[in-house]
Amino acid sequence: MTMVTCDLTVSLDGYLAGPNQTPSEPLGEGGEELHRWMFEEPEANAEEIKGILSSRAYIMGRNMFAGPGDGPWAADWRGWWGEEPPYHAQVFVLTHHPRPPLDMDGGTTFNFVADGVEPALAQAREAADGGDIAVAGGADTVRQFLSAGLIDELRLHVSPIILGGGARLLDGVGKLKLEPIEVGGTGLVTHIRYRVHH
Amino acid sequence: MTMVTCDLTVSLDGYLAGPNQTPSEPLGEGGEELHRWMFEEPEANAEEIKGILSSRAYIMGRNMFAGPGDGPWAADWRGWWGEEPPYHAQVFVLTHHPRPPLDMDGGTTFNFVADGVEPALAQAREAADGGDIAVAGGADTVRQFLSAGLIDELRLHVSPIILGGGARLLDGVGKLKLEPIEVGGTGLVTHIRYRVHH
Repeated sequence: MTMVTCDLTVSLDGYLAGPNQTPSEPLGEGGEELHRWMFEEPEANAEEIKGILSSRAYIMGRNMFAGPGDGPWAADWRGWWGEEPPYHAQVFVLTHHPRPPLDMDGGTTFNFVADGVEPALAQAREAADGGDIAVAGGADTVRQFLSAGLIDELRLHVSPIILGGGARLLDGVGKLKLEPIEVGGTGLVTHIRYRVHH
Repeated sequence: MTMVTCDLTVSLDGYLAGPNQTPSEPLGEGGEELHRWMFEEPEANAEEIKGILSSRAYIMGRNMFAGPGDGPWAADWRGWWGEEPPYHAQVFVLTHHPRPPLDMDGGTTFNFVADGVEPALAQAREAADGGDIAVAGGADTVRQFLSAGLIDELRLHVSPIILGGGARLLDGVGKLKLEPIEVGGTGLVTHIRYRVHH
């Protein structure tokens, strides 16, 4: 059965990105440090990294595809990930600017959905064909899905750093019924899997 | 060698207490839920509970002893814990209102320190006589100790609830060098021990 998951790396003070995000520093000041666990310890964290990249369909917010602020959004913007993005699946981008699907190398297609969260999820569900769907980010998009009770499993990767400002995941998300079902980690990250009860 | 530790239960959104703390609801709205893991699962969490209550000396802020706001602070206030507090050790209360030490049943003595954080730590160190010292709370006091580089081990007990407001531990704490050295937990709590590098 399809499970809707969400993997997010957050700082210990709850930020998904540091202060002052710009097109040249999309993760904000200090935000690059969040992801040290992936780049410096790929073997120790192999299971979690695989979990992030093995979904059958992805959903992401406009900013995650096109960058913060006005961003380089344009008819010819092809995302941040080069010609072969790591998704290898259908990706549904929430947007107010519809455009035709964009086929990338390696089996990734970016689809642009202008009519909201539920239709995006319905399309992703069809594409996933019984496999799992990942809500990939950013903070606003994840918060919308969490608040609407649409996420089944929240997997937080808590980086032991203090960002002190930026985009906070859980502010304004409302009450959630969470149950930690697995914990683990290394010296650079603590992994906590939460089941979200509806 | 003496280690200065700090055990804190926080919500997943980083709060030590919910919004609207009052003398009759000192943990704020929803704050009681933070501590379900201690009361409902004392056996599964026995090691962590023992860790909280086995220090040789304690330091706490004025509000933790006397309550939020103006609180019931008075010459005859004897704390929240009844006649036999669970500390069974010397407790150093930071205050602007010096008063004589208060001997309680079971070996707890509350000492009132009016000249600041470092003198309180020096007195606690002497009382601990080589044993560990715990900074017990609340948020402001812990933040002061963390920012000053005076805590060696921060042990967070993350309760899977969203409080949505209240007293946040890590806001304004500045940069910290933290390393997770142990994780564990149950369905009601995730324990993360951090070494604080100085």
